[in-house]
Amino acid sequence: MDSIKTRLVQLEVHPGNPRLNTAAMLRHIAAAREEGVQLVVFPEMSVPGYLLGDEWEHPAFLHECEDCHEQLRAAARGITVIFGSVGLDWTRRNEDGRVRKYNALFVADDGQWAGPPGGPYPFVIKTLLPNYREFDDSRHFFDLRKLAYEEQVPVENLLKPVDTRLGKLGCSLCEDAWDNDYALSPLLVLAQQHPALFVNISSSPFTMHKNHKRNRVFSALASRLRRPLVFVNNVGVQNVGKTVFVFDGSSCVYNGCGQRVACSSAFRETALTCEIPLGGRPFGSPVELSHDDISTMYTALAYGTRKFMELCGVRRVVVGISGGIDSSVVAAVYRQLLPGSDLLLVNMPSRYNSPTTRSLAKQLATNLGACYVEISIEDSVSLTRSQIDGLVVRTVDGRSPQRLSLTPFMLENVQARDRSSRILAALAAAFEGVFTCNANKSEATVGYGTLYGDIAGYFANLADVWKTEIYELARHLNEHVYGAEVIPQGCLTVTPSAELSPSQNVDEGKGDPLHYPYHDLLFKSWVEWWDRATPQEILEWYAAGCLEEKLGFHGHVANLFPTAGEFIADLERWWNLYKGMGLAKRLQAPPVLALKRRAFGFDHRESQMGPHYTKKYEELKAQLLRKAN
Amino acid sequence: MDSIKTRLVQLEVHPGNPRLNTAAMLRHIAAAREEGVQLVVFPEMSVPGYLLGDEWEHPAFLHECEDCHEQLRAAARGITVIFGSVGLDWTRRNEDGRVRKYNALFVADDGQWAGPPGGPYPFVIKTLLPNYREFDDSRHFFDLRKLAYEEQVPVENLLKPVDTRLGKLGCSLCEDAWDNDYALSPLLVLAQQHPALFVNISSSPFTMHKNHKRNRVFSALASRLRRPLVFVNNVGVQNVGKTVFVFDGSSCVYNGCGQRVACSSAFRETALTCEIPLGGRPFGSPVELSHDDISTMYTALAYGTRKFMELCGVRRVVVGISGGIDSSVVAAVYRQLLPGSDLLLVNMPSRYNSPTTRSLAKQLATNLGACYVEISIEDSVSLTRSQIDGLVVRTVDGRSPQRLSLTPFMLENVQARDRSSRILAALAAAFEGVFTCNANKSEATVGYGTLYGDIAGYFANLADVWKTEIYELARHLNEHVYGAEVIPQGCLTVTPSAELSPSQNVDEGKGDPLHYPYHDLLFKSWVEWWDRATPQEILEWYAAGCLEEKLGFHGHVANLFPTAGEFIADLERWWNLYKGMGLAKRLQAPPVLALKRRAFGFDHRESQMGPHYTKKYEELKAQLLRKAN
Repeated sequence: MDSIKTRLVQLEVHPGNPRLNTAAMLRHIAAAREEGVQLVVFPEMSVPGYLLGDEWEHPAFLHECEDCHEQLRAAARGITVIFGSVGLDWTRRNEDGRVRKYNALFVADDGQWAGPPGGPYPFVIKTLLPNYREFDDSRHFFDLRKLAYEEQVPVENLLKPVDTRLGKLGCSLCEDAWDNDYALSPLLVLAQQHPALFVNISSSPFTMHKNHKRNRVFSALASRLRRPLVFVNNVGVQNVGKTVFVFDGSSCVYNGCGQRVACSSAFRETALTCEIPLGGRPFGSPVELSHDDISTMYTALAYGTRKFMELCGVRRVVVGISGGIDSSVVAAVYRQLLPGSDLLLVNMPSRYNSPTTRSLAKQLATNLGACYVEISIEDSVSLTRSQIDGLVVRTVDGRSPQRLSLTPFMLENVQARDRSSRILAALAAAFEGVFTCNANKSEATVGYGTLYGDIAGYFANLADVWKTEIYELARHLNEHVYGAEVIPQGCLTVTPSAELSPSQNVDEGKGDPLHYPYHDLLFKSWVEWWDRATPQEILEWYAAGCLEEKLGFHGHVANLFPTAGEFIADLERWWNLYKGMGLAKRLQAPPVLALKRRAFGFDHRESQMGPHYTKKYEELKAQLLRKAN
Repeated sequence: MDSIKTRLVQLEVHPGNPRLNTAAMLRHIAAAREEGVQLVVFPEMSVPGYLLGDEWEHPAFLHECEDCHEQLRAAARGITVIFGSVGLDWTRRNEDGRVRKYNALFVADDGQWAGPPGGPYPFVIKTLLPNYREFDDSRHFFDLRKLAYEEQVPVENLLKPVDTRLGKLGCSLCEDAWDNDYALSPLLVLAQQHPALFVNISSSPFTMHKNHKRNRVFSALASRLRRPLVFVNNVGVQNVGKTVFVFDGSSCVYNGCGQRVACSSAFRETALTCEIPLGGRPFGSPVELSHDDISTMYTALAYGTRKFMELCGVRRVVVGISGGIDSSVVAAVYRQLLPGSDLLLVNMPSRYNSPTTRSLAKQLATNLGACYVEISIEDSVSLTRSQIDGLVVRTVDGRSPQRLSLTPFMLENVQARDRSSRILAALAAAFEGVFTCNANKSEATVGYGTLYGDIAGYFANLADVWKTEIYELARHLNEHVYGAEVIPQGCLTVTPSAELSPSQNVDEGKGDPLHYPYHDLLFKSWVEWWDRATPQEILEWYAAGCLEEKLGFHGHVANLFPTAGEFIADLERWWNLYKGMGLAKRLQAPPVLALKRRAFGFDHRESQMGPHYTKKYEELKAQLLRKAN
């Protein structure tokens, strides 16, 4: 065979719904056969979905998957079909005592299963199981290395290409190609058997800049293997409860020189057909891969939000809008997904909200053509104050009398909770919809927000976006998505403020205690960096005078914090919140849409145990403070 | 050597605080040396703590642990000390590309590290890594089997007893002894080298009935190995964010006949000293292990709550009390932990609360001698209703006018949110404390509660306890903890009800839509059973007439649901909620205290993807409904 007419089906996978996914796959197979396609490739875990939590523990679900496999095999008459699903061995157990499950690749070759020759199963087993970020593969799946140990054979004996009517196919699953940190390279082992074509099926969530890295990895692999390599990834959203992942697909074909010669559009279900000449000779011409930028982030954000709404059955949305930038961006994104009659924007002023922001809110609603209403929280806040401030509590027999008072800080939280838990929640119910959480990642990191207040909502689609990036999104929405100033310029220029007290008066330039251009970078170093910074590293860099360079901050830290004492107080203030109340709030916050590395929830796992400062930190701090005196 | 004077230090481990833990360990070592102890054994991960989330990714934290190890080694002059901590190899990487970390056991033998002879490290590496329930060992730690593959030697070469001044010690970590489902038994491999004594250090959270299972496993091991076995476990609480685990310790010594001859009190830091004769001959007399019962559950509940309060720095608590059973039990538990002046009980009546429950609430507060106050929600609920019911919303230019209405169901949720997010949150702030979430596991399973309403709170210490068990706890509190009827009998006999509408009038015997004796067992089969039931199994058992037997239900399902249609409607109603809104609510619910198998949060991991019904279920349902017609 000189070439294979191959179709990469970038399926929208519906997690936990094998029959729905299988029905779509059967339609794709029928269409492909009709069009003379020889090889159809579906993504990893395309039958069951991938991020299913502990659904894998339901035998009834697993049996249903097996029934679907049989339907797919039977449908693959006269064609070769590759798909990912759960491979089962009901006679063996996983190390948790449950039925043996593999993350597997199935090859249905003209109605027959084809597996690696001499192996124990008619499917290919994932060799390398990721256990980082959102991945928990070892929780549910047995890997090929453990199987080799159990069978008392070298791993290499089980790692063989699959013989099909089309030739030898070097089949692998996702992580198998990301072998940099493993003692074993599955694709290089397969290469020793000279497959005609490599296939990698994946279920790999979108992360900003990940496609570029993947391209480097796969391109290098293909040129090293000197064979074409087909990469098929799914689209849609899947979640691990607290964190919602969007899948961009970006399926593509590499020729044996490592050139990316065909690729699918991101973020939609597609079927890309490609005549792939076998052997190592070059074919096709390289397709450029553009760098991810704010436009990519917006696309992922809008797609992820739309798909999550579909998953939850959400058709109508209420957004509390303050006239600030975060809620404006949220409203503008939803207006792209909903008609104006299904989107209700609400401004909920108190005495502290300036005419500036109130009028910006109304202008935004006008520009977006969404429903709009103003509801005051003044009366309710006064009522709460009158019920609690000055209240004397005591035991029933009159002991331990204590007079309670609501401080101004407490009244700020009273206002925030009144807006969300009293107004927005009731309004969303009456509007037959949900209300959104407009928190950004800067706020989420340090818990700058009120629990059951602005932290509440059905979904936090901006909670993986730093405040400084929210401004970029706003400009992108105006300039490229709407092509008009729907988000009023004033929302971009007004001082960021919660407007909950006289000390947060935007007309006097007062607002948030965060200097976002600096704090965003500081927080990013704690959360998103590969080598996460802690106060120790930050203080070491500060002492060495290289903090700005390390963080990539274009200002001068000394301008923000004239003394070491002030610098350290700020550092500890936010670190304490990040590890303390910020975390306590995140645990009760809505699901987050993950767009970047280490989204809160399940991508970045946290334990409540308070802030930790190393001895080295304490010593350096003492030294810096001594010097200052 | 004939015998070893051994001390089992059942340490209270403070997660993420190596210096604090090390300071306590140094004190124990000094005391032990003074008392002529030869061998001191601390638990697994006693230096860093165990459930730390992704704190393992901080190099500064890891370096601090290493500094602590050196202090412990230096302190072990003239004595042998075993402890668990993270073993590091800064020259190698884990499979996620981060620094190589092992879950390790260190032996400091008269000031020198002692490791397995011929191995690459001066510490013992955990061979079997658990990846089920709350455990994520493979996320952070490299296991001995992977190391053997990397070093290209058989695992057995790396699994050797440690030679110490006291003789050969067969050292293992926690899961190494739970080898039933693994292809390798580390302790049997160690036994081939004839150690004088086996030591297993653990960090094993409490789960009802787990000690009995552990005793079977360890007793069988010791008698098979014909050698004494020392088991040391920690106390305290550690958490994985959404789920808080309590550690009971229950450290003990088995003789070579498998008899448990000494054991530490559960739930407190202890140092148990035991002269252990070496070799297989029997010594000591068996100590009976009592079965876990409601008294054990109460002890774990009270201890876990107290330790979690310490972890969070909570000193004052507000409990909303309705006069019902759940909030009464919560209040009675906290009164054991706090003086009456630091515990504020609040009754928040609306027009729907009966004089019965209001007077029960007050009676409870009187009996407990806690502070008490009544705050009405009537005015605020009326205000919310007047602001939203009948409100017309439209676009700013007048299009899409829509009149909103608040249905009676929506008003139920308005009341619940008013109580928690408006009153309790403000009251807790003014009282300088927190407020509790009183939800039980029955409600948590199906989301029978209001988000930002009764689901809110700083901690849900009853959310792993079924409603039927809450009654047992109430009786236990009265009869054994207080020795007086502090929880009024009326709280136990009143119809369980949310009292949010006329349809929930307890004085007319109306209340919750759940028949707890049946639904608790049904939900338990979905959540807690090892082989989790799904609607398919439930319906199969129903059709076969064996559902009562399978669930252990002592009533007749036919009395509750006279027809198949009614049975199926009830089944689907709750399954849909469990997988739908119930889950959405759990994601924003407070941390749960885990007491049993599969507590919500991180022990039972969930993905939002809606309810799934298999084809087999659909077919059986159709058949049953046809038959009924």
